[in-house]
Amino acid sequence: MESLVSLWDQYSSLSSQSNIISFSLGIPNNHILNQSRKLVKTALKKIVKNFRANTEILSYAQPQGLNSLLKTLQDQYSSKGKSGFIVTQGAQQALSIIFQTFIKPQNIVLIENQNYIGLQKTINNQQGRIKCFSQPLNQISIPTLKSNIKKIKPKIIYLNPDFSNPTGNTLTLEKRQILVELADKYSFIILEDQTYRSLVYKPKSQLPSIKQLYPPTIAVNTVSKIIAPGLRIGWINTPPKHLDLLISQKKATDLFTTPITQLMLNYILEHQSLYQHHLKKIRRHYQSKMSILLKSLKKYFPTTYTWNLPQGGFFVWVKGPKSLDSKKLFHQAIKNNVAFMPGFIFSYQNSSQNTFRLSISHISKNKIKIGVKKLAQTISS
Amino acid sequence: MESLVSLWDQYSSLSSQSNIISFSLGIPNNHILNQSRKLVKTALKKIVKNFRANTEILSYAQPQGLNSLLKTLQDQYSSKGKSGFIVTQGAQQALSIIFQTFIKPQNIVLIENQNYIGLQKTINNQQGRIKCFSQPLNQISIPTLKSNIKKIKPKIIYLNPDFSNPTGNTLTLEKRQILVELADKYSFIILEDQTYRSLVYKPKSQLPSIKQLYPPTIAVNTVSKIIAPGLRIGWINTPPKHLDLLISQKKATDLFTTPITQLMLNYILEHQSLYQHHLKKIRRHYQSKMSILLKSLKKYFPTTYTWNLPQGGFFVWVKGPKSLDSKKLFHQAIKNNVAFMPGFIFSYQNSSQNTFRLSISHISKNKIKIGVKKLAQTISS
Repeated sequence: MESLVSLWDQYSSLSSQSNIISFSLGIPNNHILNQSRKLVKTALKKIVKNFRANTEILSYAQPQGLNSLLKTLQDQYSSKGKSGFIVTQGAQQALSIIFQTFIKPQNIVLIENQNYIGLQKTINNQQGRIKCFSQPLNQISIPTLKSNIKKIKPKIIYLNPDFSNPTGNTLTLEKRQILVELADKYSFIILEDQTYRSLVYKPKSQLPSIKQLYPPTIAVNTVSKIIAPGLRIGWINTPPKHLDLLISQKKATDLFTTPITQLMLNYILEHQSLYQHHLKKIRRHYQSKMSILLKSLKKYFPTTYTWNLPQGGFFVWVKGPKSLDSKKLFHQAIKNNVAFMPGFIFSYQNSSQNTFRLSISHISKNKIKIGVKKLAQTISS
Repeated sequence: MESLVSLWDQYSSLSSQSNIISFSLGIPNNHILNQSRKLVKTALKKIVKNFRANTEILSYAQPQGLNSLLKTLQDQYSSKGKSGFIVTQGAQQALSIIFQTFIKPQNIVLIENQNYIGLQKTINNQQGRIKCFSQPLNQISIPTLKSNIKKIKPKIIYLNPDFSNPTGNTLTLEKRQILVELADKYSFIILEDQTYRSLVYKPKSQLPSIKQLYPPTIAVNTVSKIIAPGLRIGWINTPPKHLDLLISQKKATDLFTTPITQLMLNYILEHQSLYQHHLKKIRRHYQSKMSILLKSLKKYFPTTYTWNLPQGGFFVWVKGPKSLDSKKLFHQAIKNNVAFMPGFIFSYQNSSQNTFRLSISHISKNKIKIGVKKLAQTISS
């Protein structure tokens, strides 16, 4: 099987010609970057001003993270039950450290078929095995879910319950609770990826995270989607019993995370009113683009196509008729100057041929409607 | 076997009480940090000033490293033969990425017995095996060296030929050349750790690196010892044939290295006169402290003790009589308010009981003589 990352690279570069209206990429556009620039520059100026006092910038630091940032994370991100934090170079490193710590050869990581492509190599590195639920989690029946787990005996179940990449789906509260019960019964680790969680459109109605429901969960988070991927800061939120093992793995990986960016993030998180203001703006931006996308799909797309209604983040998952080959559609769409990501790129079972992902992250607001119209034209021709 | 890192942590914390004159630590002292602070702050101020132009700070960047820094490294650090660079989070990550890329279960990494403790876990993670040369490389005979390699069949030989941690030794030109011939004959990879190479006291008489002698070598370098470990920037210098594999491993590890620190380093390296001035100061600082240490050892230490005469870096390796137990000596020395690192902490064969490492990195200049005197008193009592 060709690696998903290399497939991604191929389709991503095809989508990146300047004349193409692209629903392909999950990277922030200039509007978002300008928002983040203010925040990050403010933090950086403060650090330059206090340069002599910030002695951590230059020397060795502890592998777990700077104490100041660890305290802030503890204050702002810990849920009930004792937990410990480890600061990492983004969520990808957090995942890589967790798999290196827990996955021995032949251990199974159970995931949804349509998933983040960055899991593949880091699990393969450990000679772990990746297995998929027999259906997407929002469609699977409780008995099938149970029999899946009983049969597959996973060491880890990886979940991205909020607006996940690539589907944008939210896992129901019922399914969260059942997975928690099963984790307790069958002693697997739940690894919860919270990468997109803060991009919720209506924070007040957000479901509790799995970590909140079940403290033994190991959670991974990052500020890449809400502040800037270039900060390269994420973290692991773990029950204390795993802390030493994970820290020693972090140390073997790269000794410690860049201190200056830890200080920058800490400054931002400590200035909550500034930060909350920023968060609101980012959320509103994505929500309004998502709303335009969903309206346009309804208006222009044939009735044989269906899609979900994401409650946060920037991905919509479109399903065409069984006959659809979204790889072929992609190449036709490119000729018509519009791009998306074919579903098979995200499929760990080399399936999902009749699906594709639309992202509103990089596209500018005023191009969404015309992009969907072009895509609908390509579909009907 | 207890992990070397955890032994290190124990002895390091015992050595760190404020009243102790410590030859234990390899971390920079305030004198060095003050030198580096000027350099780093200048770079950072420039980045704040051009913040809007430095678009790489915020968004995703390519896994290999920022083009500007890659070009600078290519200009300043490439030796004859084509080579490619990958920017990493320090040398530890560079090593970890290389072992993850090349070491499959049961593959052997051949090293000197007294060595950098950070190798152990990252090789064990791959279920690789660590084997040691039967003698230190500066003592081993050519026939024994050859038969070692023929018998052990290493996949990788890890070498730290310049002022290595912990011994401070320099590998002779003859041994470098023979290892290169053997690499060619037996097809193992030479992994050259250049961490301390720039800390040479007399740059004009420095031996060529193994990478310079033999372009198929994979070299690892870092600015942790010459600018600041807190920058977390190192790199891999590899023959082009390994480049894609190593980049894909870097991507799985943490996507890409923190851009702001890459920009800072690039600024420093681009301002060569500033940087060379800094380098000279750092080298002179260590050289003068080393000179005091060696004079003091000669003056105060019993004739049953021997040590090497390092040509760079900050470590001296002391060998006592066979009866010496440097672990016991350590605990006696601590009572006498002086500390060093017992040799067994660095030994991959759980040997080296009659040796210890003295470091001039953290100690202030005016404490070296009195520290050696105290240590000599402890030895004779």
